[in-house]
Amino acid sequence: MNFKVITSKDNPLIKLVCSLQSSAKVRKSEGLFVLEGLRICDDACDNSIRFDKLIISKTAREKYAATLSKFFANADEIFEIPDSLFTKISDTTSPQGVIAVVKTPSFSPEISSCGRYIALENLNDPSNLGAISRTAEALGVSGLILSRDSVDPYSPKSLRASMGTLLRMPVIILNDFVDEIAASGLKTYACVVDGDAMPINKVNFTDGSILLIGNEANGLTDVAKEAATQRITIPMCGKAESLNAATAASISMWEMMK
Amino acid sequence: MNFKVITSKDNPLIKLVCSLQSSAKVRKSEGLFVLEGLRICDDACDNSIRFDKLIISKTAREKYAATLSKFFANADEIFEIPDSLFTKISDTTSPQGVIAVVKTPSFSPEISSCGRYIALENLNDPSNLGAISRTAEALGVSGLILSRDSVDPYSPKSLRASMGTLLRMPVIILNDFVDEIAASGLKTYACVVDGDAMPINKVNFTDGSILLIGNEANGLTDVAKEAATQRITIPMCGKAESLNAATAASISMWEMMK
Repeated sequence: MNFKVITSKDNPLIKLVCSLQSSAKVRKSEGLFVLEGLRICDDACDNSIRFDKLIISKTAREKYAATLSKFFANADEIFEIPDSLFTKISDTTSPQGVIAVVKTPSFSPEISSCGRYIALENLNDPSNLGAISRTAEALGVSGLILSRDSVDPYSPKSLRASMGTLLRMPVIILNDFVDEIAASGLKTYACVVDGDAMPINKVNFTDGSILLIGNEANGLTDVAKEAATQRITIPMCGKAESLNAATAASISMWEMMK
Repeated sequence: MNFKVITSKDNPLIKLVCSLQSSAKVRKSEGLFVLEGLRICDDACDNSIRFDKLIISKTAREKYAATLSKFFANADEIFEIPDSLFTKISDTTSPQGVIAVVKTPSFSPEISSCGRYIALENLNDPSNLGAISRTAEALGVSGLILSRDSVDPYSPKSLRASMGTLLRMPVIILNDFVDEIAASGLKTYACVVDGDAMPINKVNFTDGSILLIGNEANGLTDVAKEAATQRITIPMCGKAESLNAATAASISMWEMMK
């Protein structure tokens, strides 16, 4: 195994990883993202996601020798860096010393005509995206559909909150959310907070369905609501103004999949 | 309105508030907790929760004069402190300058024989407790039951995550979780991750039901599972090991209440 050693914080790869950790714009322009930590890198290996570059700290190389041999076989290039430099490129407070740089999938999966999807319009919070993807996978949802303005599924926070599910599930990012969903021909169900919408437990979901969930603060856009086959709602009582997006998504996906 | 002015960080009330913000033990021994921010203090007023003490910063007194007059009428004592001192007793990064000290309810509500409850055994994470209480209120659950070892519902994080619902809903804290739930005579449903348990969509929930959810890492204790009327599960697929506690609670409460 051929290791390259980097010791300078001014090395271009070190600078690149820092930018990939913090900037969705850089991730997009470079077509790369970062996986940090043993568990998610292991998940990626198991899902045949190749490491463009693998960066490990000196301590990690000794401490995790057994696990790392699997990662080495999955990496195009391997770099060892001092622990002090690793802390600079890490997104966590107690880094394990393992970072992989991975190519972003260059094309989106297609929407299948017999699938059951959850579509998120302008979702803002990486923790919500992570939580929703975990629930989606557990309940057997076919894939996640995201509007281009939604939070980056390849951000460190999204990936961490998803416990790796964002690497395993089909993630479809749409430039034109409403039109492309309409063009799929699937039935679409817009989740809204509105007593006039159909209670979700009365909906007869079939194959070929897409659930639409909106932004945490503003819900779905009017154009998305109007384009939907049906407006649906989770009946609520009490003083609660609304369920949070991840909870609404969980209950809706459960009803769609059960 | 009679204002007392405090300027020293060594004042006993200042020290007490700092301890109440950070220590569940102090909250318990003093029988007091803290509400911070305009919104949750306003919620408390609306729910007839009296302020033992109200502490406001100099800036808040000028900035929120209109709202504060309602709080003044609800407070036994009022203290004004400098902004610099307020930042020391605040639990938030951008304090609004309003803190109320409130007496912890001295007795628990009873479990009603026709209620539908969610019971949390050794729940650990205040964000989960907050999220579960929000969903519980929105779905019309009768109350929350907590084991004595669960996270403190009166911690600043729990209260914030609950958006005030923990002040509005009955919260029943049990010293002897399993025995006291059994003594209630209600039917109890233990949520477990086990293919042999009854799928939750097959359960016929009636009035007089308690859903049991366990600790985030370890689930329910064996003794709680064995004492339950029925072991139930949310059917899962894929590589997901389990749903997180708040998601499992959301789907379960939805099935119980719909």
